[in-house]
Amino acid sequence: MSVPRVFVSTITANDRVVALPVADAHHLVRVLRLKAGDDVRVFDGRGHEWAGRLTGSSASSAAVEIVNEIAPAEEPAVRVTLAVGLLGRDQMDAVIRDATMLGVWAIVPMVTARVSVPERAWRSGGAITRWRRVAVASAKQCGRAVVPTVGAVTPFDTLLHLSAGSSLIMCVEPGPGAVSIGVPEVATPRPTSALVMVGPEGGWSSDERRAAVAAGATAVQLGPRILRAETAPIVILTALWTAWGW
Amino acid sequence: MSVPRVFVSTITANDRVVALPVADAHHLVRVLRLKAGDDVRVFDGRGHEWAGRLTGSSASSAAVEIVNEIAPAEEPAVRVTLAVGLLGRDQMDAVIRDATMLGVWAIVPMVTARVSVPERAWRSGGAITRWRRVAVASAKQCGRAVVPTVGAVTPFDTLLHLSAGSSLIMCVEPGPGAVSIGVPEVATPRPTSALVMVGPEGGWSSDERRAAVAAGATAVQLGPRILRAETAPIVILTALWTAWGW
Repeated sequence: MSVPRVFVSTITANDRVVALPVADAHHLVRVLRLKAGDDVRVFDGRGHEWAGRLTGSSASSAAVEIVNEIAPAEEPAVRVTLAVGLLGRDQMDAVIRDATMLGVWAIVPMVTARVSVPERAWRSGGAITRWRRVAVASAKQCGRAVVPTVGAVTPFDTLLHLSAGSSLIMCVEPGPGAVSIGVPEVATPRPTSALVMVGPEGGWSSDERRAAVAAGATAVQLGPRILRAETAPIVILTALWTAWGW
Repeated sequence: MSVPRVFVSTITANDRVVALPVADAHHLVRVLRLKAGDDVRVFDGRGHEWAGRLTGSSASSAAVEIVNEIAPAEEPAVRVTLAVGLLGRDQMDAVIRDATMLGVWAIVPMVTARVSVPERAWRSGGAITRWRRVAVASAKQCGRAVVPTVGAVTPFDTLLHLSAGSSLIMCVEPGPGAVSIGVPEVATPRPTSALVMVGPEGGWSSDERRAAVAAGATAVQLGPRILRAETAPIVILTALWTAWGW
């Protein structure tokens, strides 16, 4: 079994002993049945990771004694923000989970003309809290020491306005006016950061597409077939890393 | 709304009127509420597609009058067979759905040393029948005129034996002895066909990995993070198409 990893956002390089969040202590001691002395890793979500050992053997007293800092899983050379049109609950969770595994730096849930998810599904803070939890769980599982930030739900226009000057990539359905993801120009030269925009299930309105292109976005189509909204982020990210280097 | 697509495996180039399977007739007439004269497409699952019009307006009498054969969605230049270690029901359905969208030629569900799905889940023919239905549904949705074959559940050793001489790619977890998917050698030269092997959730046994390498397989790691078993096929296929061309 791989070594369990715990996310502790407050850990600093000087800490010798780290108290564990209650849920993690419970999971390590009760579910995984670890004992004092067992290996545990701690990461801070900002790219640092430490090897340590469990101290205490009850869920209420468990802590980690830090042994040494270790090299975290490598991060991509390009800082990618994924902006994704709001999808249903399970689809959105899947996108956040997969985008975290695939190395994005930040995720922005986005309101676009064709978003069909009712506003009550994301207007309260509950959705963002859940998405952040999904990002943490995915980072734990995939071995990543960085947890992508999950931004507030943002309207498309605002996002485009804020991103002027960035490297912009808009995923579109197969059709005229779009370059294919396989074309070298999509990924060359390699930027230091990029905003990748994926629409909701209904795709983009023609106004949105025009506005993005006017702001300098490259409209990219992901092969000749129509992809599901929650699969498109995996495909565009993989294609970009394959071209840019993982 | 895009034009509804119907899969009729028995259609030939000479047919002028095609009777619809009962479930499709019901879907077009009762669910989508199409009328006589509305556009419908028909594909044969082997790469041919026709434009046509609905005739009859009851679920029991609906048929399609063929207007003309049309160019199908482009198929990849490489015929990829995806062999995937058996996963749980929902995961397996997702892999078949996504692999179909991503242009594989065939899918082989595979028994490997670390498959943890109980035999009763796939021993009867029910699982294969369902997987084939998933492949058809995905081809309909993504606009593809080819439905990948879903082979019988096959042991890893048998598959490897049958595939000697093919271009073999084995997806492995990050670690020594594997080349990274971003490395040009993985995709060069472009083969005419390839067998891509993705393990079950527990990964490969060391015997399996040795046997695959001895058979000429390239062990490929998909970036520095650990991917979920049902995401790995999407990532390897996308990376290969990006390098080979969609």
